[in-house]
Amino acid sequence: MIRIGMLTSGGDCQALNAAMRGVAKTLYNSKEEVEIYGFLNGYQGLIYGKFKLLNYSDFSGILTKGGTFLGSSRTPFKTIQDPDENGLDKVAAMKQNYYKLQLDCLVILGGNGTHKTANLLSQQGLNVVTLPKTIDNDLWGTDMTFGFQSAVDIATTCIDQIHTTAASHGRVFIVEVMGHKVGYLTLNAGMAGGADIILLPEIPYDVDKIVKKIKERHDRGSRFTIIACAEGAISKEDAKLSKKEYEKKRAKSKYPSVSYELAAQIYDAIGLDVRVTVPGHTQRGGDPCPYDRVFASRLGSEAGMLILKREYGFMVGYKNREIVKVPLEDVAGKLKMVDPKSSIIKEAKKLGISFGD
Amino acid sequence: MIRIGMLTSGGDCQALNAAMRGVAKTLYNSKEEVEIYGFLNGYQGLIYGKFKLLNYSDFSGILTKGGTFLGSSRTPFKTIQDPDENGLDKVAAMKQNYYKLQLDCLVILGGNGTHKTANLLSQQGLNVVTLPKTIDNDLWGTDMTFGFQSAVDIATTCIDQIHTTAASHGRVFIVEVMGHKVGYLTLNAGMAGGADIILLPEIPYDVDKIVKKIKERHDRGSRFTIIACAEGAISKEDAKLSKKEYEKKRAKSKYPSVSYELAAQIYDAIGLDVRVTVPGHTQRGGDPCPYDRVFASRLGSEAGMLILKREYGFMVGYKNREIVKVPLEDVAGKLKMVDPKSSIIKEAKKLGISFGD
Amino acid sequence: MIRIGMLTSGGDCQALNAAMRGVAKTLYNSKEEVEIYGFLNGYQGLIYGKFKLLNYSDFSGILTKGGTFLGSSRTPFKTIQDPDENGLDKVAAMKQNYYKLQLDCLVILGGNGTHKTANLLSQQGLNVVTLPKTIDNDLWGTDMTFGFQSAVDIATTCIDQIHTTAASHGRVFIVEVMGHKVGYLTLNAGMAGGADIILLPEIPYDVDKIVKKIKERHDRGSRFTIIACAEGAISKEDAKLSKKEYEKKRAKSKYPSVSYELAAQIYDAIGLDVRVTVPGHTQRGGDPCPYDRVFASRLGSEAGMLILKREYGFMVGYKNREIVKVPLEDVAGKLKMVDPKSSIIKEAKKLGISFGD
Amino acid sequence: MIRIGMLTSGGDCQALNAAMRGVAKTLYNSKEEVEIYGFLNGYQGLIYGKFKLLNYSDFSGILTKGGTFLGSSRTPFKTIQDPDENGLDKVAAMKQNYYKLQLDCLVILGGNGTHKTANLLSQQGLNVVTLPKTIDNDLWGTDMTFGFQSAVDIATTCIDQIHTTAASHGRVFIVEVMGHKVGYLTLNAGMAGGADIILLPEIPYDVDKIVKKIKERHDRGSRFTIIACAEGAISKEDAKLSKKEYEKKRAKSKYPSVSYELAAQIYDAIGLDVRVTVPGHTQRGGDPCPYDRVFASRLGSEAGMLILKREYGFMVGYKNREIVKVPLEDVAGKLKMVDPKSSIIKEAKKLGISFGD
Repeated sequence: MIRIGMLTSGGDCQALNAAMRGVAKTLYNSKEEVEIYGFLNGYQGLIYGKFKLLNYSDFSGILTKGGTFLGSSRTPFKTIQDPDENGLDKVAAMKQNYYKLQLDCLVILGGNGTHKTANLLSQQGLNVVTLPKTIDNDLWGTDMTFGFQSAVDIATTCIDQIHTTAASHGRVFIVEVMGHKVGYLTLNAGMAGGADIILLPEIPYDVDKIVKKIKERHDRGSRFTIIACAEGAISKEDAKLSKKEYEKKRAKSKYPSVSYELAAQIYDAIGLDVRVTVPGHTQRGGDPCPYDRVFASRLGSEAGMLILKREYGFMVGYKNREIVKVPLEDVAGKLKMVDPKSSIIKEAKKLGISFGD
Repeated sequence: MIRIGMLTSGGDCQALNAAMRGVAKTLYNSKEEVEIYGFLNGYQGLIYGKFKLLNYSDFSGILTKGGTFLGSSRTPFKTIQDPDENGLDKVAAMKQNYYKLQLDCLVILGGNGTHKTANLLSQQGLNVVTLPKTIDNDLWGTDMTFGFQSAVDIATTCIDQIHTTAASHGRVFIVEVMGHKVGYLTLNAGMAGGADIILLPEIPYDVDKIVKKIKERHDRGSRFTIIACAEGAISKEDAKLSKKEYEKKRAKSKYPSVSYELAAQIYDAIGLDVRVTVPGHTQRGGDPCPYDRVFASRLGSEAGMLILKREYGFMVGYKNREIVKVPLEDVAGKLKMVDPKSSIIKEAKKLGISFGD
Repeated sequence: MIRIGMLTSGGDCQALNAAMRGVAKTLYNSKEEVEIYGFLNGYQGLIYGKFKLLNYSDFSGILTKGGTFLGSSRTPFKTIQDPDENGLDKVAAMKQNYYKLQLDCLVILGGNGTHKTANLLSQQGLNVVTLPKTIDNDLWGTDMTFGFQSAVDIATTCIDQIHTTAASHGRVFIVEVMGHKVGYLTLNAGMAGGADIILLPEIPYDVDKIVKKIKERHDRGSRFTIIACAEGAISKEDAKLSKKEYEKKRAKSKYPSVSYELAAQIYDAIGLDVRVTVPGHTQRGGDPCPYDRVFASRLGSEAGMLILKREYGFMVGYKNREIVKVPLEDVAGKLKMVDPKSSIIKEAKKLGISFGD
Repeated sequence: MIRIGMLTSGGDCQALNAAMRGVAKTLYNSKEEVEIYGFLNGYQGLIYGKFKLLNYSDFSGILTKGGTFLGSSRTPFKTIQDPDENGLDKVAAMKQNYYKLQLDCLVILGGNGTHKTANLLSQQGLNVVTLPKTIDNDLWGTDMTFGFQSAVDIATTCIDQIHTTAASHGRVFIVEVMGHKVGYLTLNAGMAGGADIILLPEIPYDVDKIVKKIKERHDRGSRFTIIACAEGAISKEDAKLSKKEYEKKRAKSKYPSVSYELAAQIYDAIGLDVRVTVPGHTQRGGDPCPYDRVFASRLGSEAGMLILKREYGFMVGYKNREIVKVPLEDVAGKLKMVDPKSSIIKEAKKLGISFGD
């Protein structure tokens, strides 16, 4: 008999259900007797003992469904060790619920913040196996995360739609793509959508270079320009500020985001009509794309196999086309970022894409 | 020999190319010799004599392509009779270019503003046939406009995507759908996406009723609520203001749109996490849906047949499943709006949808 | 208190769930106490007493889901009055189950065959309200059926996909679209997909005219031709045969369908590489398009309102943009077909589409 | 000055245009003067001197378009060294046209057959750089080919559509996925679509095991079963035959493909209604998915960089997330197949998928 708890934490994304189905089917199809408890709404369910005993049919028909049937919530790591408003010790509560249910292992699906807490629980002696969920693809220790390709598809569709109206009206359009710290999503959606300019957190931009690129395009007869701009894109000047100074500056800004500020700067420099589109939360919604369904199923299945072998303390990741187990302490607290010197950036530049640098 | 000029004016939408192809193929496939001139970027091309002589192959392969290959621009009717910055009389210039090219007819594709100018040109003695293009479906004299169903598809997909993340996180989500004056798009996308609350310009809302509906849902165990809110949704109080007073109030508001204001009001009333998503210009972009391709092709073809019969001064519309010709003076300056007493609103309410009224 | 039974019969299609949800929500949201029984797998469930008592949550989250959660089956009308293999009188059994459950009304969703049986049950004294479900749009008494637009979308996507490969290889492609007796689906998907030739059951074709059209295209430099061919397309010669003779001929044919026969005839006449693609059952599958979701919800809601008013013996249909009730005896046994003289056919011909006639 | 010829050969697929755009933009954006000649319809254009001089604008707007703007054709390698019907030595003709245009290099996009000819031309002294195009992902020397992910998306959508109708009617459905020799496409689409049984050319099946799996599902209450069957799936018995014997057997068979034969066998064994759907050529059609657009652009750009460095005789491939150059002689004549012992097969089995082995 093996007893596991399962939870999804942080911003939801596509293929969470597919991944959980992968774990569950692998366990249920094994020779062992299995009990799976689902904690509701992320770590909240584990802290406050909100869960349900799941069975085979709970995992049926969910491969293709977006969201997470267990619910999710954000439980910031920086507050996880503080008592809650009633004085409850959250970490102790999680441990208590784990032991009360006599769990053999927790399966935790989440992104960066989630992994910090998962690592903490592992250090505290709980058995933990995690799965890399995020549309940002910014988890250390894995080449790919599920949710990413689905989000690329959505953001690209958005750029495709903007393309026709930008071309018809001869406008500059900025599409603000999700990603506060890491630009994989913007980079891939931008390249797939044929963006002329791509702005990433990892490559600070110079407004003058952006304006120059737009002018060049107009001089060559291209009436429109598409800019894919990450939420966390930053100018070269702002990149010199300390994190604190920059946050202060942004908070004071009259623009809701960098995209709007940039739109104003381009308008001021060149007098062109600039529009901003923000697909926002749609990028983490809807049903998973086929790539993510297969990928999340595979990772889930491998997590199930690890559990059956009683190998704990790992994130199941993907490296060089092989599925691998990565020690949690190697994952927690690190960020995988776009390398400005990587071959994909070089190729994009050869294709004529400007990064504003 | 018949010589026509063609132009697309106002905000672009899906199936403009399909409609123009419909006109052109019908003309080219007739027994008459035909010359088609395409004016670039809407009335601007007609005013400033920017055009190109088109041929059969220009209309090939464009049935399925979004945008308009002629380009478009907004040329507000309220300024059309004013001279331009160089003192040019725009109306006179348009007439001059029409006569210089010895045109037999102008084919004009556009929405409400466009039809005002088209009617003016018709009154000035030019032969004009128009086609009803708008994602708002707000043109008088026709049950349907092309672009509408494509925009419904996009806005619905957006609501579908928001649905999964709203459900996973137990959030209230407001999706702001295009439509400043008319709510057909919001109504249809809202119903198709399973929105719980739909807010239209034609049905002023009461925030308390919205809050009550959300509370009811939460009391019955529904952790999330989806609100489809038209750009031009308006509260009962604001609906009492004069247009001028209201515009003043909005200009002063710290919220970029009604959706954001409403989000704040709901949060204040009920303490729930409310998010706003604005698909914006994506709704008029991308390739036309099959419905619009067929519909625009049919209208275009009928416009071609009218021209061959030398019947001018009409918009080609659609009434009771028949294609009809509507005198331009009956179309210009009128708005087709959602009737709050229509059967679709009644049905929506029976389905449990709240309009906040 | 009102007690209703619900069933879906015949080939499934998109938006069956949306329509049932519309009925159920309207009933549950009324002031009356309501009990809804769902019969499983169409008339089979009613005959053999297989059903379940449904509740509000059974209709939650199904608006956007394809198929039918009650299951369906084909129960041919021509055998409905014969006893089953155990000698059971099927009609009597249906009546018995209706009365045993003390039903006030049956809600039946189906197409042509289904309506014959529904009418029979109505004539036998049962209260019946029906909803027009079919991808064929061939039901008498309604301008539109749900499932149709979703199927148009799928068949059009198929033609779009074939377009690129046909163009790249310079091939003639025949896409066989569903529709044995009626051509609305083929006509609309063909027009939306830009087919050069459209073959419908209602307009018998002449192979020579098809070959001539292909030759003309090749002579003008078009390397490829797309033919949208209904399953029930028929040549002028075969159209002269009696139904029996034709069925005999088809049964003997070495070609699995008319499309394959036509492909061979074109190859023989002109030596071009002709390929056939058959999207088949995909056309009735997948989730409903936004149009069908709204349309089916509206019809369902109106059916619910009829039931609350105790108005029975009707199909809820759609005429001239109004939702109407049509007496079942006016619907049963009739087929709505494409009129070869209708304006859409005329427009299609003006666009250059050949119907092979 | 650098002068290159470009051609696309073999069955077309998605992202051919994106790849060519990648090569061209990289060359045009370099400091060298560049001339690009496009040969029409694959090797046919090179043999018979059908080409056009291309320019920058020919590569504009094609990133997102399916098919190949140069056209393609199949020119089987086994006949390439035979004279044509007029006695022309094809290989000599290709060399002659290459030298006549004073080309520095040929860029050839294609799959397995294409690479044999490309390697031959390279051995004959022509400078050649190739790009791996195929929906089968069966090219040796690269982890991935463009077209593959787009085809997975289409085949998965097809299975999704079949899913709803199979579930509604309680049917067994076989979806026949492209792939005569290699099963990557079927494997991935099958896993993404939630197929219960997946049949690949690399893993011969036992009909009894398939029937057993279907029975098990029905015994557990699953009314339907989805089988993803590769075109080249083969039974254990047939796998024992020589290639010649097997081809003879298939040619004699009354079933158009293995899928239909299997359907009959299942029906005979178990009496269930079995349907076959064949998406066919749709799988290589339509516009490329975002993954393929990025991937093909990257490969194209790297091919351009190789050419600028005068490095010839390579296919540009993808290994362990790095873009690599693979000597043509290592690619030609080899097939990359699904390894029945690979981790993905193991994972799929743990998920409960049967391969019939």
